[in-house]
Order: sequence, then structure tokens, then C-alpha cells
Amino acid sequence: MTPGLAELARKVSNWGRWGADDERGTINFITPEVVQRAARCVRRGDVFSLGLEFGPDGPQFGQAGRVNPLHIMTSTSNQMTPDPAGLRYADDVVVMPLQCATQWDSLAHVFYGGQLYNGHSAATLTSSGAARNGIDKMANGIISRGVLLDIARLRGVEAMGPGEVIGPADLEAAERAQGVRAERGDVLLLRTGYMRVFTVYRDRVVYMKQMPGLGVACVEWLHAREVAAVASDTSMVEVWPPEDPAQLFPLHGLCIRDVGLTLGEMFDLEALAADCAADGVWECLFTAPPLRVTGGVGSPLNPLAVK
Amino acid sequence: MTPGLAELARKVSNWGRWGADDERGTINFITPEVVQRAARCVRRGDVFSLGLEFGPDGPQFGQAGRVNPLHIMTSTSNQMTPDPAGLRYADDVVVMPLQCATQWDSLAHVFYGGQLYNGHSAATLTSSGAARNGIDKMANGIISRGVLLDIARLRGVEAMGPGEVIGPADLEAAERAQGVRAERGDVLLLRTGYMRVFTVYRDRVVYMKQMPGLGVACVEWLHAREVAAVASDTSMVEVWPPEDPAQLFPLHGLCIRDVGLTLGEMFDLEALAADCAADGVWECLFTAPPLRVTGGVGSPLNPLAVK
Amino acid sequence: MTPGLAELARKVSNWGRWGADDERGTINFITPEVVQRAARCVRRGDVFSLGLEFGPDGPQFGQAGRVNPLHIMTSTSNQMTPDPAGLRYADDVVVMPLQCATQWDSLAHVFYGGQLYNGHSAATLTSSGAARNGIDKMANGIISRGVLLDIARLRGVEAMGPGEVIGPADLEAAERAQGVRAERGDVLLLRTGYMRVFTVYRDRVVYMKQMPGLGVACVEWLHAREVAAVASDTSMVEVWPPEDPAQLFPLHGLCIRDVGLTLGEMFDLEALAADCAADGVWECLFTAPPLRVTGGVGSPLNPLAVK
Amino acid sequence: MTPGLAELARKVSNWGRWGADDERGTINFITPEVVQRAARCVRRGDVFSLGLEFGPDGPQFGQAGRVNPLHIMTSTSNQMTPDPAGLRYADDVVVMPLQCATQWDSLAHVFYGGQLYNGHSAATLTSSGAARNGIDKMANGIISRGVLLDIARLRGVEAMGPGEVIGPADLEAAERAQGVRAERGDVLLLRTGYMRVFTVYRDRVVYMKQMPGLGVACVEWLHAREVAAVASDTSMVEVWPPEDPAQLFPLHGLCIRDVGLTLGEMFDLEALAADCAADGVWECLFTAPPLRVTGGVGSPLNPLAVK
Repeated sequence: MTPGLAELARKVSNWGRWGADDERGTINFITPEVVQRAARCVRRGDVFSLGLEFGPDGPQFGQAGRVNPLHIMTSTSNQMTPDPAGLRYADDVVVMPLQCATQWDSLAHVFYGGQLYNGHSAATLTSSGAARNGIDKMANGIISRGVLLDIARLRGVEAMGPGEVIGPADLEAAERAQGVRAERGDVLLLRTGYMRVFTVYRDRVVYMKQMPGLGVACVEWLHAREVAAVASDTSMVEVWPPEDPAQLFPLHGLCIRDVGLTLGEMFDLEALAADCAADGVWECLFTAPPLRVTGGVGSPLNPLAVK
Repeated sequence: MTPGLAELARKVSNWGRWGADDERGTINFITPEVVQRAARCVRRGDVFSLGLEFGPDGPQFGQAGRVNPLHIMTSTSNQMTPDPAGLRYADDVVVMPLQCATQWDSLAHVFYGGQLYNGHSAATLTSSGAARNGIDKMANGIISRGVLLDIARLRGVEAMGPGEVIGPADLEAAERAQGVRAERGDVLLLRTGYMRVFTVYRDRVVYMKQMPGLGVACVEWLHAREVAAVASDTSMVEVWPPEDPAQLFPLHGLCIRDVGLTLGEMFDLEALAADCAADGVWECLFTAPPLRVTGGVGSPLNPLAVK
Repeated sequence: MTPGLAELARKVSNWGRWGADDERGTINFITPEVVQRAARCVRRGDVFSLGLEFGPDGPQFGQAGRVNPLHIMTSTSNQMTPDPAGLRYADDVVVMPLQCATQWDSLAHVFYGGQLYNGHSAATLTSSGAARNGIDKMANGIISRGVLLDIARLRGVEAMGPGEVIGPADLEAAERAQGVRAERGDVLLLRTGYMRVFTVYRDRVVYMKQMPGLGVACVEWLHAREVAAVASDTSMVEVWPPEDPAQLFPLHGLCIRDVGLTLGEMFDLEALAADCAADGVWECLFTAPPLRVTGGVGSPLNPLAVK
Repeated sequence: MTPGLAELARKVSNWGRWGADDERGTINFITPEVVQRAARCVRRGDVFSLGLEFGPDGPQFGQAGRVNPLHIMTSTSNQMTPDPAGLRYADDVVVMPLQCATQWDSLAHVFYGGQLYNGHSAATLTSSGAARNGIDKMANGIISRGVLLDIARLRGVEAMGPGEVIGPADLEAAERAQGVRAERGDVLLLRTGYMRVFTVYRDRVVYMKQMPGLGVACVEWLHAREVAAVASDTSMVEVWPPEDPAQLFPLHGLCIRDVGLTLGEMFDLEALAADCAADGVWECLFTAPPLRVTGGVGSPLNPLAVK
């Protein structure tokens, strides 16, 4: 950490804010009132899946040990009864990195200085899993109001390019242009259009290796706005290559470890964004409950947006 | 199939109802209007997770090849930067049957006569997965109104016993007692209290090997009410040992293959039921999007109920 | 089964030959005397690995649910001591079909008529594995004399072509040309050269989908010679497409289920064959102990030949 | 490293001995002459498996993320032909740590100071596996003469106890008592009897958590004798708890990283030792080829001894 980042870390820290034992971070902003407001966003009853498929054609190409899911059929036609003409069943097993496609990071995913979010010791991460800050600690969430900010649209491009930085001014310009405002407890959905590199142009390597995204200046903005989570259509939410080659992954470090703000990655926002552009309504009921994997560091997801 | 069941199958069949290509069955009942109604069930904004944890202490004990999840940590403290004092990350992989704890069956899970729901050929089930009726075909769902019927409460017991049959009269008695009615597009949540055998008494073998549940007479009732799905706190929804030893798993066969009605299994309804008993409101916004596993026969879940 | 094959099955059956409980079949031919003879084949002390690598570039392309191994690093640099400058270790996990590259079939791999080799019921195959005839029953083997018959060399080709049939006359012609004879207890190593399609031309699909190999007439020959096992450089040992489209996989059915003769597949015989051609000695000490996977249907291998 | 150990490391180092690129270490001692001598150890032709079973009842209990193999049946009765009365097959998949039962460590398993055996950088260990010193580099081995030293027998006990140290004097006393001598290229098989804690008394936790074994003074002895490998009936070969609490795992560090000497763990030597005690012959042909797992850090095994 440079002195600058260390200072920023202190500034945005939420450690202790919800008690010394807290393992949920900014998810705590999702109060019953926030959920009520979220439910009121359902006007037409239209549902959008923001999840990628979990299958052999997923975005992984082996980087950092991440692979696409291996789906093993353990039965295609086993008999359920002694009668061969009777009922039969199919069954299956999956082998997958918990963060191989659309997913939440848990607050145990990234850390430094021997401490996870809220000061929990990094020694709580063992081969048995994350004893603290695991994804299982977010059991009742994440359901809230989703606010989509479409930065690609703001810039008038189909998709932003790799290394293109989004700053607080962009976020606020999008809010103004769209007539919406990210508030306490909201889940911020951030569209760069870069998902199209994978879904339309089918280049998983380019999609995974570099991307547009949030710059480090947004950490204070996210902290000030008190959003519950931020999710984007890239694999890291933050920009890559990084703004400062001497500071790698500053958003991952500061958001997850200091703010206690979870990141949602590889959300497919294309259909939702098109719908929002058409009706001018940029908020939705957002529901993306993580699997309760005991000690899990992340969770695969099928997030839904309802308008 | 006995002649009686074959006759019943014809009677409750929804094949062709949503076109020859349909792979979603009764999920089709969840129209935008149904979703609007569901959203209006959010009054207080309180959220309940209905999911079990996915971990080594799950309900499986090896029956039929199903095991509890194997959670493998691939990193507990790998460096993200060249600096050992810099950011570090944890990462993980899971190996699990897709139906090892709280889960949806897909409409490819059970079949007979060489045909899946809607007449799709059983030959579409291959080692590559379910080409038709897979869980990936339910991408935009399942979000609807949840209606909880608490049969254990109706009978004045903590938990119903193994082999105890629930009939249409029980369902309607519960509706009357609770002042609620399962309607088109609703997800029926059926509490037997039997989950406590696992969660309280920690006997996974008894929990998995026998159970109370729906009798075959309920198939017509579910079909007539046009519910979108039915989920229970047991591992099979239907009663076991079966009513007729010559007819094994009749509900699985008829609901999944003929009605096109998906089953949700091992939903933990205890906290939700207690809340409903306390405030007398037995409906909720229910959201349980399956993972989009390509060709998956089922999906692990963390279903949420919001009141 | 056509009547012809059924008659052949009766003729070559070894059921009961080693007692009603036998689960090892022709491996029983490997007596201590045979092992002594095998050891005497070591003249120079040169060792040849006949195994393919188990890795992402293996021969599988997803056919019949078989995939190449997924190798997961669970540690690349974990500390073994409290001192960061002290010992560190790497560790790993593999996920793989037991028959994904060089391997033995067990006598539980193929069956018909509800019975495995020696009359054991097919019902002994459950989701817990093969209770009878599993690969774990071959714990002390397979070590014997290896006799290499090079049919590609006999025919003067680099590699035989797909669908090219090897008959008993070819085997005997190769024996005469090479001055060697497969006898009781030997492991027959059969070279077609077709392995080069995978190892040299890198076409895994062509390599796996069709191949030269033994014709059905060889079953009696193998039975009469009382070899302990037969292994080849193709993925099935037998020819494909088959000689008779109405009889698929006759060698798998007859050898494994009736003769009790295990098949070794995807053995890389190139270096060994070149050496044998150079020195004119076509026998070796052959050692290929299967992993003792409890109830395993097959086993991955690294077979060694020593001359 | 204490200064004493660092000095010892320099003394026993084989770095550069077989060239700067060497990745095989003391396996290089297995020359053709050594293999010839090994083959001459086959007198009666009796074969002993030294491998444990790979299954759910294996020795692992979750320590350090190691679990027993998960064996998944992907077919118990799938049709191989269109005819339901025709051939059927069973097939399976295994998920397992490569070091979960009887196994070889590779020379990439343990390291310090940023360097593996022979000076290869620890940075060659990535999520893709071990690019240097992996188990795949031992493809042609390990086949050699096995020399069994039975320390439990020497001490007149059924099994040595946890923490009991074996020193060079013990090894030489056993050699004298047994009339055998470990020489260049031999594989030293070291019996403590402690395997019985697992195989007879079925206590996997005691078996894995502490054990008798080699003391640090044996490193020089092993280096001087130029054995190719050393294998024992415990999970670590070296004694635990350690001789000096300030020096954890000194044998793993020095043997694997400095000597380039691979360790074989959890070898079941009971039947072989009983046979040797009976006939007074303590040498055998030893064959234990590792699976060629690309970049593997270790390999599961079924080692054979032939007398």
C-alpha cells in the first residue's frame, strides 16, 4: 500500500460500524425499509435474468486456476422402480470454481495486512474454508433496489474499451442523464457494455484479461453513497490495466477489505439496459441470493431484476 | 404404470398447453400480473432464507450416489501483487450433486415411456446433459407469490411422521384455517415440520430415507389450482414409504413429466412458518432463481421469502 | 446378441474356471512361474513408459461424458511453519474419469443379460461403485511378460487406418515375423500405429471416434492362447466402425464379460516398438498395477515395459 | 532454517549433479545396471501390493484440505447399443487429492528460499501446476530394487510409537540383523509398523496426526548411500512430533529440495515384511510408476514388490 491508499483505506473503513463481530459489511444497509422500496419498483412484473450460463462455453480459459464448470451426468436413464418400463431419472454433479461466471465475492475474498474486513484474522482462512466473512454469512441477502447506471450509453458507445476508467463524475453524469440516484442500501449495477466482448464477439480471453471499470476515486463515492453492493458486466468491476501500475487491484482491496462492500462480477446487463433505455426507468427490484456454501469465498449466481 | 395412473396422467397432462416446444411447464403460469401480485406481498420488508447450507454437514449420506458438497480451497493466501505485504486472495472450488440440498428439480429429472415433459424424447438426455427441459430453461424464474400451507400446524404436531399422507382435504383445511388460497402462478410451500429431523435432531439418514408428504390424490388438485411449483421441507415432497408399494414415486412421475410441475425439495420453512403463525399472513414474495447450469437436471438454491 | 455371438460366448466362457467367487478372470493366468519368466525378460535394464500424460491436452473431447483431467492446485506456496521464510508446499487435486487416458478396464465395465463376468449380478453395480469385479480386485497385478505384436510393421505402414480389421492370421503372421509367441499368462501388446493420430497429428477427435483393431474372430484366439490381458494403442482395442453394424462392441462384450479378459486402452507403444524392431526382441517385463480405487470400473495407468 | 540445517543442506545438496536442467534427482541413480539387479530379485514370482485402497474409508479426515477420494459413478447400466437387451456399461469419475493415500511426493512438493530442487524457481508453481520437478518428470520410473528395513522388528515391537525417532544406527542395525544393505539406486522401504494404527485399529486421526519416523540425522545417511527413494508406512516418513520444535519437517525440506530425494508415503509393508521375515530375504523387485499427471505435485500409487 502506498501512503495515499493507506490514508484512503482509513477514510472509507466501515470496521466496527456494525459491531466487532460483523461479517456482512454494507449488506447491513439493506434494511426492511430498503426492501419495501425495492418491492415498489415492480411495476410491470417483467423479469430479467442477469446471469451467464454455467457450462463449458463460459468465460474462463484457465487463468489463475479458474476453469469453466465441469458438468458430469451421473445418470441419464436409471430406473426408479424394478420395472424397466417404469419411472427413470437423470441426475448430475457439477465441479466448478465458485467464481467462474456470474458471482458475488464474499468479504473473505481479498485482504491485506493479515486482516480481513472488520479486522478478522486472515488465519481464519484455512483449507476448511472461510470461517469468517464467508458467503454463507449473506444468507438472507441480497435483495434490494437495483439502480442501473449505463456508462456506455452515457458515452454513446456500444461498449467501453479496456483500460477505460470510470470516475465519480461519470457516475453522477449517468445519474443525471437517467434521472435516478443510487442511495443507501441500493445495489449499483454498472454497465460498461464490455460483456459483449464475450457474449457477442465470443472472445473470452480478451474479456477476462482486460476491461473498463471503476477507478480508485470511486471508492470514496461508493462509501459515501452507502450502497449495499456494486455489480458490473466485467470480471473485476474495476479497470484493468490499472490506473497506477504500482497499485494493483486497489478497488478489490479497499472495497472488500476496508469498506466491507461486496463486488458482483460478470453480470449480463444487456437486456435490462435496453429495457431501461426504452421506458426511462432505471431502477428495479434486484434479487441475487448467494448459495449458502459453508465457508465459501464466493458464490455463483443467477441474479434477477424485476421491473 | 397401472391403468389408474395412466388415466390420471392423461387427465393432468399439460403437454402442448404452451406449444410443442415448451420446456418450462407450469412456470408459464407466472405472468407479469402474478409477479406484480407477488411484489405486493412485501409489507414489512423482512427477508427469510429457506435454504440449507451447502457443506460437509449437509443431509446426504451417500444414498443413490448423492454426497454432500466437497469444498476445495484453491488459495487461502495467494499474493495478488509482487509485494508479499500487498493484497492477497482466497479462492475455492465446489464439487457437488446439483440436488444435494435445497434445490429445484428440472423437468428433465424424471420420466417414463421414453418421453420427458411435453413429449421431448428421453434420448435428449445424454452425457452432455439435458438438451431439453434442463434447469437452464427456467432462467427468468422462479419469482412469484409464495403461499405457505402448514400441515404440521393444522394437525397440531411439531412434525408429521414418516409415511403420513397429505391429501387435498388437508390442503384445503389448511387454506381455510390460515385464510389463504393457492392460485394460478403461486408457488406452494408445504410445511410438514419434518425438516426438524435433520436440523434439530441431526439424523440425516432418517430424514432422507422416509418422510411425510403429498399423496397421489394431490396431483389433480395441484393441476386444477395451476400452481407454478410446489416445494416442501422434505427431500421428495411426496410421501415415503409410498401409499401403494406397487406404485413408486407417482408424484414425481406425474407432476414432473405430465403436469410439467417442478418440485422444490429440502426447503427450510421453520422460521417463515413461525413468522406467519405470529402475524397471520401466509403469503410472501418468493424468489428462488435456479443457477443457469447448461443442461442441468436440477439446481442448488437459496430461496428467499419476503414479507 | 445374434445366435452366432451367443454360441461364441458359450465357447469362450471362463465362468467358473477359477471358482464361483472369482472376480479376476484371466489375470489368474499370471502364476508365479509366469512372473519369473517375465523377470527374465530384463536383459539391458532399459525402461519404457507406455502411458499418456493425464492433463488438459489428453485425448478426450467430451464423448460419452469423458473429459480430460481437471488438475486443481490447492496450494502453490502455503507455509508449513510459522516463519514466512521457512518451508512451503504445493498440493493438488485431480478430477478425472477413471478411463480418460491410458487405462485398464475392470471386469465390471461391460456386461449384458443382467450378468457380469462369472455370473455376478449387474445389480452389484450401484452408485457406490462395482461391488464385484471392480478394479480393486486386481490389486496384485498386473505384472507379467509383455509380448508386443506390431501389426502396422507387419503391414509395412506407419499406422493402420480406421476400420482396418486385425484377424488371428495377422496375429500369427506377426508372431512368425517377429519370432515370438503369446502364451499363457502373457500380456499381449498390440500395436496399430494409430496412436500417432493423437500424439503426432494431434487429432483427438479422429483418434477417439474410429480406429483399427481386433476383429471378432480374435476372441477365440485370445481365449485359446490364455493371455492374461490385451492392450493396444487405440481407445477400444477392437475395430471401429465395427465389422457388422448389427453387432456393436462384440469384443468388449465377449472378452470382458465371457472370457474375463481385461482390455488395456490408449497404450503408447511407439518407443517400445522402435526398440524392439532395432534389437529383434519383442518381449519385455511388463508392469501396470491399477490404482486400488474401491469399486472402480477402470484405472488410469502408467504402464512400464522393461527390456 | 537454523544455521545448522543450512549447513547440512549445503552438505547433502545434489543440485547440479545431473545438470542444471535436471528435474528427477536421485531417481537418476536408477541406471540400467540397477534395474538388471532389481529383476534378479525375482526368485519365486510372488507379488505383493503395497498400496492402500483409494476409497471413502481411506486415511484422510480433512486435515490440510486433504479428503478421501470421491468416487462418482457416471453410469451403472447405460446401453451401448440401441437394443435394451444388448451390451451395457458402467463408468466412473474420481475426485481426489493426489496425495490422499499411498503416493509419491514429487520434487515440487516442498521448497524454501524461493527455490525448488536444483534451483528451479518457486514461481514455476502456478495454478496450472508444477512446470518444473512435477511428477510427470518421473515417467519412466520408479522401478528398482527394493530393500526393506524393518525397524519395528529390530526393536521387537508390533509397531513403533508416535514421536519415536529412527537414526542412522537403527538403519545399520537393521541391515546387519537382516543381512541386507541399501545401495546406490535402491528404493529404501522403511517399516515402523505404524500402518497398523490405521489398517488394524482403524484410527485415521491418530495415524495421520503423529507418527514414528526418520530423524534429521538420517538425511546425510540417505545422501551417502545414494538411494533413489525412500518410502515408509507412515504419512510423512519423518518423525512427528519433530525432534526440535523449532525445526518443523526438516526431512521434507532437505530430502526433497536439497538432496532431490523423493518420499513415498503410506506404503502398506505388513504382508511383505511378514514374508521377508519368513524367508530371510529382504530385497525385492520394486515397481511403482507414478501416474503421468501433467504438472502434478504427487501421484497416487499401487506399488508392487516381487520376490
